Amino acid sequence: MTDQRQAALDYAKKHQADFLSSLKELVAIPSVSTDPKAAADVKRAAEWVAARLKQLGIEKVQVMPTAGHPVVYGEWLGAPGKPTVLIYGHYDVQPVDPLELWESGPFDGVVRGENLFGRGTSDMKGQDVAVFSALEAIRSAGPLPVNVKFLLEGEEEIGSPALDDFIPAHKELLKSDVALNPDAGMIGKEYPTITYGLRGLASFEIRVTGPATDLHSGLYGGVVHNPAVAIAELVAGMHDANGHVTLPGFYDDIPPLTPEERAEFARLPMDMEHFMEMTGVPMLWGEPEYTPFERVGARPTLEVNGLLSGFTGQGTKTVLPAHAMVKITCRLVPNQDPEKIYESLNKYLQEKAPKTITWELIKMQGGPASISDRHSAAVQAMCDALETVWGSKPMFRREGGSIPVVAQMQSILGIESVLTGFGLPDDNLHAPNEKQHLPTWYKGIDALIHFFFNI
Amino acid sequence: MTDQRQAALDYAKKHQADFLSSLKELVAIPSVSTDPKAAADVKRAAEWVAARLKQLGIEKVQVMPTAGHPVVYGEWLGAPGKPTVLIYGHYDVQPVDPLELWESGPFDGVVRGENLFGRGTSDMKGQDVAVFSALEAIRSAGPLPVNVKFLLEGEEEIGSPALDDFIPAHKELLKSDVALNPDAGMIGKEYPTITYGLRGLASFEIRVTGPATDLHSGLYGGVVHNPAVAIAELVAGMHDANGHVTLPGFYDDIPPLTPEERAEFARLPMDMEHFMEMTGVPMLWGEPEYTPFERVGARPTLEVNGLLSGFTGQGTKTVLPAHAMVKITCRLVPNQDPEKIYESLNKYLQEKAPKTITWELIKMQGGPASISDRHSAAVQAMCDALETVWGSKPMFRREGGSIPVVAQMQSILGIESVLTGFGLPDDNLHAPNEKQHLPTWYKGIDALIHFFFNI
Repeated sequence: MTDQRQAALDYAKKHQADFLSSLKELVAIPSVSTDPKAAADVKRAAEWVAARLKQLGIEKVQVMPTAGHPVVYGEWLGAPGKPTVLIYGHYDVQPVDPLELWESGPFDGVVRGENLFGRGTSDMKGQDVAVFSALEAIRSAGPLPVNVKFLLEGEEEIGSPALDDFIPAHKELLKSDVALNPDAGMIGKEYPTITYGLRGLASFEIRVTGPATDLHSGLYGGVVHNPAVAIAELVAGMHDANGHVTLPGFYDDIPPLTPEERAEFARLPMDMEHFMEMTGVPMLWGEPEYTPFERVGARPTLEVNGLLSGFTGQGTKTVLPAHAMVKITCRLVPNQDPEKIYESLNKYLQEKAPKTITWELIKMQGGPASISDRHSAAVQAMCDALETVWGSKPMFRREGGSIPVVAQMQSILGIESVLTGFGLPDDNLHAPNEKQHLPTWYKGIDALIHFFFNI
Repeated sequence: MTDQRQAALDYAKKHQADFLSSLKELVAIPSVSTDPKAAADVKRAAEWVAARLKQLGIEKVQVMPTAGHPVVYGEWLGAPGKPTVLIYGHYDVQPVDPLELWESGPFDGVVRGENLFGRGTSDMKGQDVAVFSALEAIRSAGPLPVNVKFLLEGEEEIGSPALDDFIPAHKELLKSDVALNPDAGMIGKEYPTITYGLRGLASFEIRVTGPATDLHSGLYGGVVHNPAVAIAELVAGMHDANGHVTLPGFYDDIPPLTPEERAEFARLPMDMEHFMEMTGVPMLWGEPEYTPFERVGARPTLEVNGLLSGFTGQGTKTVLPAHAMVKITCRLVPNQDPEKIYESLNKYLQEKAPKTITWELIKMQGGPASISDRHSAAVQAMCDALETVWGSKPMFRREGGSIPVVAQMQSILGIESVLTGFGLPDDNLHAPNEKQHLPTWYKGIDALIHFFFNI
């Protein structure tokens, strides 16, 4: 171990309380990106982050305006011959309601037991500050051993709309060898994790129309196909009894899971009980030939996000509705094309929709899945870093969610992301009493120090 | 023709504009009985009706409180030796949403072409005011030729719950020879109609719960049974491919249609084209072994009135909803018991609901079907009145709608109802742009004048 690396680790150990104070400062800024009234606070968080980068000796730090909330950029390119790491982060947070369920103020940053409670402590101000802290520790003992650039956005929690323009418009500025994205979390506190796959997304709305206007259900029930019933029949037909999606060709482009991938999933320490506890459902559901982790991580899904027809207020209205609507999101795995999924759904409707109604299929948003190279030097560097700190090889997982920026970096910048992070599954992301487990967080800072030296 | 009858008809002809103004006044009161916020307006409508009865010289007029909206009672018993007619009406109306589909304000009472548009113009403030107008015309030329009592309620559109107690508690007060119920409408403007059968009603709400809270569809889709999908499956399974209801025992208590009844249905002048024109659907639906009129008039149905789950606003929210809800109304034919239909649905849910979700079945309202005597003196009096005005014998029909009070009057007061009315099938009952065809309405007032003299 180099002297500088050991000095950095020693510094980090000594300054844990300072790092925690720094995180509390950022958590105290209520940067809720979806709330127009919080725009000034979101900007304040951007400025806090920019100031912190400057403290770390990062150069060309800018709070760059976008159509929405700003992007904070900075770079330090003083390590010629070494790779350049594009560090991704977001400084915005989810809303805090229902406020009454919080045990302490969501922006107060209160430590109880081993956890720091507050909005953003885990997702992902905690991860941002872990990176800043690791860099501070390294810089305390010498120059950075790699080149770094920063892309820190303020709109992740609202779907990163500004990045659609920002990344293509700043290809040269953002040019790097690899990205570090610590927004992906861990499977459990004993299981350091590298996420190598994220699912893609394809969203739709289907609108069904029966009669020209709402009808009296007593006068026309029995001769008119009720659009609410028709849409229920269409939705019900989209899965078979075993939870397989029935849209024609839906699974066509998916290579089968390899024995190696299945073995990797089987190593994951959680089981059905875990999912039942996390969700509160009486019984799990889904494709029986895959484990729950495989279903969430490696299988495409079709979910109804919303369903609406007729009268939904209190009491009874004996109406036969004219319209019915369903919102659907498919999560896609690598090699599935959102456009082909649209065609699948369209074909399904052409084949199955009855002639008693008319229908319309509207394409909403879409993005392909991403799988990172699990064998790159950067992934190996992170793998070694995590093993050094935790004493065991990290878990590799394919995750159910979608982080569009990972696919954007792949397709526009041509770089892979190393996806990790030090949040835990019970951190209450997007929910009341969000927390960060501090022993895990301090380990994470150490792992990041190792990563920057390893790469 | 007596001088008084002719004088009444002349008066009615001369005062059409006044009758229309009177109807507009009542339409202007938004007496939506299902909306708790409209309770004061419902009361105001009751008071308007009571004041109108007093104007007509009706005695003992009272706005009688109930557990819900009040009943307006009044009587005039100055024709000894003549029958007593219990005039039924309701002064409440259906909700008006979706408001944006109305071409003029739902409570504005706007005349366009031959129609008056507004909520309640046809169902049934228009019919109430037709009776008041006929009585005013008769009274202008002398005393009423019959005894009358009034039972005007404010809860018909929510299933007449208060009448369950009110009618048994006031048996003596309501004692009459026959009831006149003009809430039943016509088959077409050239076809005066007497309805002799009405379907019963049983309404329900089913609530399905999956996870404890809304979930991220990317993190849990594939392992959790989506409640919107589960409710779609349950709703889809309630009919077979031929439109038959699949609830266990649903059809058990129904005697088969007799050849005489089927012949009566076959006389009705409308066919499939009629229903397609009235509804605007691309193709009819329903049990193929019955004609459309039989399906609407003599077969029980199960309709979805409302369906709701998850995010139904603009755009996309990738949520896996915690809850889903469906509102259902069954129309029942004679001999079907609403309580048994509840048990049918409950049994269906017990058998079919998957263990991956929990569900709750809520009973809303119910009332049995009714069939009236088609050969009574009162029916003959109405038959003659309609023939005098329209120049053709009325059609007799069994209708799809439900008027629970007809069954209550039969079973509790022991009296039959003469069911007629001057609404048309395209009046958009319970829908935006409800209307009353005014030439038909004026004819109806004349027919009511004849009825009161004929009986």
